[in-house]
Amino acid sequence: MNSMIGIKGLYMNKIKKAIVLFSGGLDSTTCLAWALKKGYECFALSVNYGQRHARENESAAKIADLLRVKLISIELKLPWLKSATSLVGGGKVPTYSRFRRKIPSTYVPGRNLIFVSMGVSFADAIGAGAVILGPNAVDYSGYPDCRPPFYKSLEKSVNLGTKKGALGGKIKLLTPIINFSKSEIIKLAFKLGAPLKYTWSCYKGGKAPCGKCDSCVLRARGFKEAGFRDPALE
Amino acid sequence: MNSMIGIKGLYMNKIKKAIVLFSGGLDSTTCLAWALKKGYECFALSVNYGQRHARENESAAKIADLLRVKLISIELKLPWLKSATSLVGGGKVPTYSRFRRKIPSTYVPGRNLIFVSMGVSFADAIGAGAVILGPNAVDYSGYPDCRPPFYKSLEKSVNLGTKKGALGGKIKLLTPIINFSKSEIIKLAFKLGAPLKYTWSCYKGGKAPCGKCDSCVLRARGFKEAGFRDPALE
Repeated sequence: MNSMIGIKGLYMNKIKKAIVLFSGGLDSTTCLAWALKKGYECFALSVNYGQRHARENESAAKIADLLRVKLISIELKLPWLKSATSLVGGGKVPTYSRFRRKIPSTYVPGRNLIFVSMGVSFADAIGAGAVILGPNAVDYSGYPDCRPPFYKSLEKSVNLGTKKGALGGKIKLLTPIINFSKSEIIKLAFKLGAPLKYTWSCYKGGKAPCGKCDSCVLRARGFKEAGFRDPALE
Repeated sequence: MNSMIGIKGLYMNKIKKAIVLFSGGLDSTTCLAWALKKGYECFALSVNYGQRHARENESAAKIADLLRVKLISIELKLPWLKSATSLVGGGKVPTYSRFRRKIPSTYVPGRNLIFVSMGVSFADAIGAGAVILGPNAVDYSGYPDCRPPFYKSLEKSVNLGTKKGALGGKIKLLTPIINFSKSEIIKLAFKLGAPLKYTWSCYKGGKAPCGKCDSCVLRARGFKEAGFRDPALE
């Protein structure tokens, strides 16, 4: 799919470049497939920030390879995260609770802000017009950096602080699934032919998904509601 | 100075924490001295992003040590920067020109956005209420990420995407010298007793400042206008 779009784009001399923030999970894989379908020449960006589930980076490599997309992996060690989030080292990953109200310990301070910033740097460096990412504000863990007003505001900021923005261009921040339920994301992924079989969602990063963390529970519920079997579990 | 403020703050149980983005250059050293004077418990953050003048990191370590401030150094290698900026590897550092209109090759795409994002992550992790940094929109190289509207907008974005912001608090982005001329910055630095002797500004990062790049020329002119000798050259 990608190579055909690529050739068509080249021929028409209208290739649109995009940076896709890509963890190798269900949501960002769906976004990558979406971006390819939209005709973007995609550069996938993944970050190893010391997360327990760095296994997702293997998924990212496999999927990028399958979709023939260039993957750029960044190493980022931020020492303050160790005691600030259970995803890097600060305590156990909690099991899912539908009654939880506060921001859970799996919140990684500033993560999406940093990832978007890196994507914007990449976009500004190569003249790409979009940074595409998969935050979701419906079936999510209550993270503040997954909500629409944040991205709307950040897009404005970004264009005030980049060369592209200063020269009259624009770097768009596209969040195509932000208002989708998990089952809607899964339906879209199937429609796009996204290789969900190779995606990784579990926060714990063991050999197999734990089935108990937020990420596992929301994924399982999404598949059930969408009426599909999770191909990663087959 | 710092330790006294620290003790007083502890005693009053009113320590204000701040992350100071700190390169070891003249501007950020002045900002660090300013932050200490304002009573902040400061955490200095420096980033090695592959810049030619990584020598500035040695200055940062020396100055943080002198001011008894904890310094956190981050390694960040972004492969796209090599061909995107002369500060990392894309061509020669240009000599200063007062007639230049376009954004110079020393512009590093998304640099300040990424640095602020890291500072915000750190602040959100430890509950600090401010990220302090030293961009300047007067005697500068015309970088889009050094202008006031960018920071005003970014502060708003940041508070929409952090735990502190979501819980009703605020992370301020403070840019105390953004509207100062270089000579005003230098006068402030002397007033605050900032250890300018150990600062490093030259983009080329040789054994001694080149005297010809933007950073050297703007610094020299600032000292001349302020009526001080540059202690780093003695």
